[in-house]
Amino acid sequence: MGNNDTTMIMRHPIGVFDSGVGGLTVVRALRRALPGEDIVYLGDTARVPYGSKSPRTVEKYSLTCQRFLLDRAVKLVLIACNTASANALPALRAVSPVPVIGAVEPGAASALAATKSGHIGVIGTLATIRSGAYAQAIAARDAGTRLTAVACPLLVPLADEGWTHDDIAAMVARRYLSQLFDQDRAIDTLVLGCTHYPVLAEVLGTVARELAGHDVAVVDSASAMAEAAREALGSSPPVGQSPPGSASGPNKRTTAGRLDCFATDTSRLDELAPRFLGEPLTGFELVDL
Amino acid sequence: MGNNDTTMIMRHPIGVFDSGVGGLTVVRALRRALPGEDIVYLGDTARVPYGSKSPRTVEKYSLTCQRFLLDRAVKLVLIACNTASANALPALRAVSPVPVIGAVEPGAASALAATKSGHIGVIGTLATIRSGAYAQAIAARDAGTRLTAVACPLLVPLADEGWTHDDIAAMVARRYLSQLFDQDRAIDTLVLGCTHYPVLAEVLGTVARELAGHDVAVVDSASAMAEAAREALGSSPPVGQSPPGSASGPNKRTTAGRLDCFATDTSRLDELAPRFLGEPLTGFELVDL
Repeated sequence: MGNNDTTMIMRHPIGVFDSGVGGLTVVRALRRALPGEDIVYLGDTARVPYGSKSPRTVEKYSLTCQRFLLDRAVKLVLIACNTASANALPALRAVSPVPVIGAVEPGAASALAATKSGHIGVIGTLATIRSGAYAQAIAARDAGTRLTAVACPLLVPLADEGWTHDDIAAMVARRYLSQLFDQDRAIDTLVLGCTHYPVLAEVLGTVARELAGHDVAVVDSASAMAEAAREALGSSPPVGQSPPGSASGPNKRTTAGRLDCFATDTSRLDELAPRFLGEPLTGFELVDL
Repeated sequence: MGNNDTTMIMRHPIGVFDSGVGGLTVVRALRRALPGEDIVYLGDTARVPYGSKSPRTVEKYSLTCQRFLLDRAVKLVLIACNTASANALPALRAVSPVPVIGAVEPGAASALAATKSGHIGVIGTLATIRSGAYAQAIAARDAGTRLTAVACPLLVPLADEGWTHDDIAAMVARRYLSQLFDQDRAIDTLVLGCTHYPVLAEVLGTVARELAGHDVAVVDSASAMAEAAREALGSSPPVGQSPPGSASGPNKRTTAGRLDCFATDTSRLDELAPRFLGEPLTGFELVDL
């Protein structure tokens, strides 16, 4: 691919959508992996959360989110929301003219790369866990792996409330993770199967290790999704972030790409968004879907 | 009003809507106060919760809910959702040909009837507390009353998770109610300003009394809304439920009215709905709004 083609393709943004602002953890990883790319982010904050709803509703809302991104001529769609990925990926791919990357496949791949015991735990929303999507993705890659899954409905509102490093967070984490480790004490890898959970990673990791009595790796989909996006676009890794064993060339795209954020409701965005993005935000544009 | 007129008016149902299933606590009170009336209930479970969203979104969704009820020829609309009542009542009344009863006015009246100290606390969703609706309703009735309000975003998901009588519920209640009683130790009446909270009434009352060091009355809008509905319809109270000082006539409507329930998403309804209604449910019909 010549430089001119690259420039033209780079003018098209990458589209990312999520049920809310948690998906900004994926944008954060994308901006590290592909610093020159423009990104359009849509948070469906008016209809958040998706995690407690039925597959039918999740699919319907996800299709309207993807339509919004496609109308902005994105060259790639990332479904940051695990619930949408687990319940709507086939429907989204069926109608998209550009590649669609979900959260489940990259998360499953990260978990398989991390586990030594072959015993993996996954936590997520009710709709993600009920879909069985992680079990299917892991079984398809390694049928010998044992997966245990637990739905944790209270973790998203807990993260939104900002109670992420205190005694209530620890008690809630203990109640959910006990259900996991009571079923399989040999779990050595915990998948955070929801874009909200990375802000709770510390307490979840601490409690998991305490319950397991051994080290537990905590993995999420964000970095793996960014890596999948880089591969889909045929880009080389930016300076200082080359994958093991690959030669790193000079990074031609040092200019930071644009980040345009849209949301269907603006309540609490100023408070919540920077927590997940990890950098200041210029603001969200309100849209009706 | 003659018997024939009464029969005709009674053929029209009372409409009740809520962002979810919490509003069934109002239906429960209605069925006690007006046992012969038919009721149409709509839970906007696909877009729940309203409490964390902006007034604009709450108003928009509330209008579609009311439209659904009016299309079913209801003779009265009850907004079971405090968030919708606090943010959308004027907009709903402006377009409704039938009376519209919100949750805030009856809740405020109940609180004023219960308080002896004139110090009232109210808890609710972010959108309810931010609206200032309870402060306005109480000031309009008794300017000498002191109202302290605290938003409790985690109580709705806690109630939905069913963690209503345990150590986590007590810790969460203590964290929120401390914010209330730290501001005003003389509070003797706590308004549950959200239809979800009655299932947490026990733990909230216990913690409130512990923090206050004296008795605290816990009031909610459900019974007061049912009473307001009865007044709006000009009905006499059913046998055994006459208000103090009134003569109770024989109850002509011993037949239980119909209850037709609609929801915009069916996930978790079988699990959650009976908890709030307090009786078995024949089921919800799924509707798109």
